[in-house]
Amino acid sequence: MPSFKLLLLPGDGIGPEVMAEVKRLLAWFETRGIATFDYDERLVGGSSYEADGVAITDSTMDLAHAADAVLFGAVGGPKWDGVPYEVRPEAGLLRLRKDLGLFANLRPAICYPALAESSSLKRDLVEGLDIMIVRELTGGVYFGEPKTITDLGNGQKRAIDTQVYDTYEIERIARVAFDLARKRRNKVTSTEKRNVMKSGLLWNEVVTAVHTREYPDVELEHQLADACGMQLVRRPKQFDVIVCDNLFGDMLSDIAAMLTGSLGMLPSASLGEANPATGKRKALYEPVHGSAPDIAGKGLANPLAMIGSFGMALRYSFNLTDAADLLDQATANVLASGLRTADIAAPGQATVGTKAMGDAVLSAL
Amino acid sequence: MPSFKLLLLPGDGIGPEVMAEVKRLLAWFETRGIATFDYDERLVGGSSYEADGVAITDSTMDLAHAADAVLFGAVGGPKWDGVPYEVRPEAGLLRLRKDLGLFANLRPAICYPALAESSSLKRDLVEGLDIMIVRELTGGVYFGEPKTITDLGNGQKRAIDTQVYDTYEIERIARVAFDLARKRRNKVTSTEKRNVMKSGLLWNEVVTAVHTREYPDVELEHQLADACGMQLVRRPKQFDVIVCDNLFGDMLSDIAAMLTGSLGMLPSASLGEANPATGKRKALYEPVHGSAPDIAGKGLANPLAMIGSFGMALRYSFNLTDAADLLDQATANVLASGLRTADIAAPGQATVGTKAMGDAVLSAL
Ligand SMILES: CC(C)[C@H](C(=O)O)[C@@H](O)C(=O)O
Ligand SMILES: CC(C)[C@H](C(=O)O)[C@@H](O)C(=O)O
Repeated sequence: MPSFKLLLLPGDGIGPEVMAEVKRLLAWFETRGIATFDYDERLVGGSSYEADGVAITDSTMDLAHAADAVLFGAVGGPKWDGVPYEVRPEAGLLRLRKDLGLFANLRPAICYPALAESSSLKRDLVEGLDIMIVRELTGGVYFGEPKTITDLGNGQKRAIDTQVYDTYEIERIARVAFDLARKRRNKVTSTEKRNVMKSGLLWNEVVTAVHTREYPDVELEHQLADACGMQLVRRPKQFDVIVCDNLFGDMLSDIAAMLTGSLGMLPSASLGEANPATGKRKALYEPVHGSAPDIAGKGLANPLAMIGSFGMALRYSFNLTDAADLLDQATANVLASGLRTADIAAPGQATVGTKAMGDAVLSAL
Repeated sequence: MPSFKLLLLPGDGIGPEVMAEVKRLLAWFETRGIATFDYDERLVGGSSYEADGVAITDSTMDLAHAADAVLFGAVGGPKWDGVPYEVRPEAGLLRLRKDLGLFANLRPAICYPALAESSSLKRDLVEGLDIMIVRELTGGVYFGEPKTITDLGNGQKRAIDTQVYDTYEIERIARVAFDLARKRRNKVTSTEKRNVMKSGLLWNEVVTAVHTREYPDVELEHQLADACGMQLVRRPKQFDVIVCDNLFGDMLSDIAAMLTGSLGMLPSASLGEANPATGKRKALYEPVHGSAPDIAGKGLANPLAMIGSFGMALRYSFNLTDAADLLDQATANVLASGLRTADIAAPGQATVGTKAMGDAVLSAL
């Protein structure tokens, strides 16, 4: 029986509640003899700040480096709005991404047919929607230096953030996008603001070169980021894979997720470069939704995005394709049976809580 | 009879077609004795590049400085994708914004009841929608230095863009937003990414300080930019005024515009600081839609956004409130009568071209 090392980082808000459902799944896969999971569980984000004064400790980072995969819940909340910038909850997530080299963030935006009605878009525009957003995750304005606030005197301050991209960073994320497109509908939309940003100009040039050199069989289209945002709202089904930088990816993937009406359903994977010797990649899996402080602790959160993130780990990190298919099918069956948490319920439809949804997935398995 | 100096810059694509309809309106207002308009017309964008090798000439800039208002059509198109960065079509618009000091970009996103059906959102979510996006327009990543592409050797290049904001730049745009909110529904949503950007942190701090000091009577709320994009798609009517930086404003205003189903209807105003002696502001008015190269030259473009932009000039630059009301009412009547250009027609509805729509507004006047 294969064995994997996991690090569980439930984080803040609803993070611990949705992670609890994944822990029950780990046990299920073990008792069925599919795999053993050797896992540690640690604090991250605001809860780590409360306990240790930082958003993630060095020893937790060591565990992350040693793990086959990190499962991450969510971080942040108004409670920590006032904490110093360096130790704010998000710093924990950003350090994980940067130090583990997780440059490729895969965010599927899928509209589950059973949930098309909960989209704010008209049904025919989103029914069957299946977009993959490939977001660069370790570069751009998130990490570029200088990143400072300077006191200029006279009551004036100056804030600076720096967007930086090198050729190799764009090349490797482009390859991820083209490789995924080949297994899907063979189309990539590359998105930037080359009409105002030099990084957009380089982005466009490098993606085009990778395409010509290595992926001439894939259809490539370029869209300015503002136009892409518009088109996502107008006619989302025109897209297959969208590739973009860290900041545009943050906005566009959240918008795409919201379109589907299935935000509480959407998983994501953040992957590093393949180790040339073992072929293994560092990886972190997290739901697209946030920490939802308003419903935290009430047992109301939808665990399916966290469960789906574990499903992506089965697929991308553990190579347990059958197990991943089994889990996805169980989720689909639960939805088809009409079970709903509040976030995905139609008006008037009966709803269940986090644990009942987890129970249902387990019994569908 | 008051007299005003105008500079008309039709630009590229559908720009000249929609501007032609405004010229007929200028003549109408003159013959009715409402005002005289002394105007020059010049090239900008790709068409200026073709004629003069730059996206806007110095002598055109001189005219812009001397004018009471600039009316701008649209610039750009795939034809000029390959021209050098410094003389690309957009450089003309960016120079106008920067050199005239047009720091405040007002972008109303209004859903005309007659057009609610052409939104991709469900009718009840957008019917009656009326958001004002206040976008900072002369700072941020659009103009910050360094802005470079450097050859690092080894086939590697590095692109850098710089986001810079000073306290005073945030203060003055915040005041525009709060002033507008007081005349509307008294609510401002300030949007940034303070969890990853230092400029977001300063933005949040300065907007909060302006609020506490000068506008405690206005409701202020803060939303992260990615959350704001989501909320625009999910429940747009929660917003009144949204204030944000140049790049977030570019994305969010386009998304908001697309939500309304009325993109071809939406005007915008870009305003400078009031001259302390005369109270006058430099100003540029332009439709939110782009140059639409696919339909350019075919007489199909909707002129109502350009006409509405002229209406904003009547209101904000010429203080001709009655004339502005008259024009807005004429447009509303035309829409109520069922006349549609292709972009705003329901499936199966008969459509008219640019000139017939202009005719209809003139006869409604
Ligand atoms: C929590 C925050 C730092 C993060 C980001 O901006 O990347 C989040 O919005 C996301 O998209 O994962
Ligand atoms: C044409 C382009 C430079 C411009 C911008 O990015 O500001 C446009 O998208 C806009 O929103 O006015």
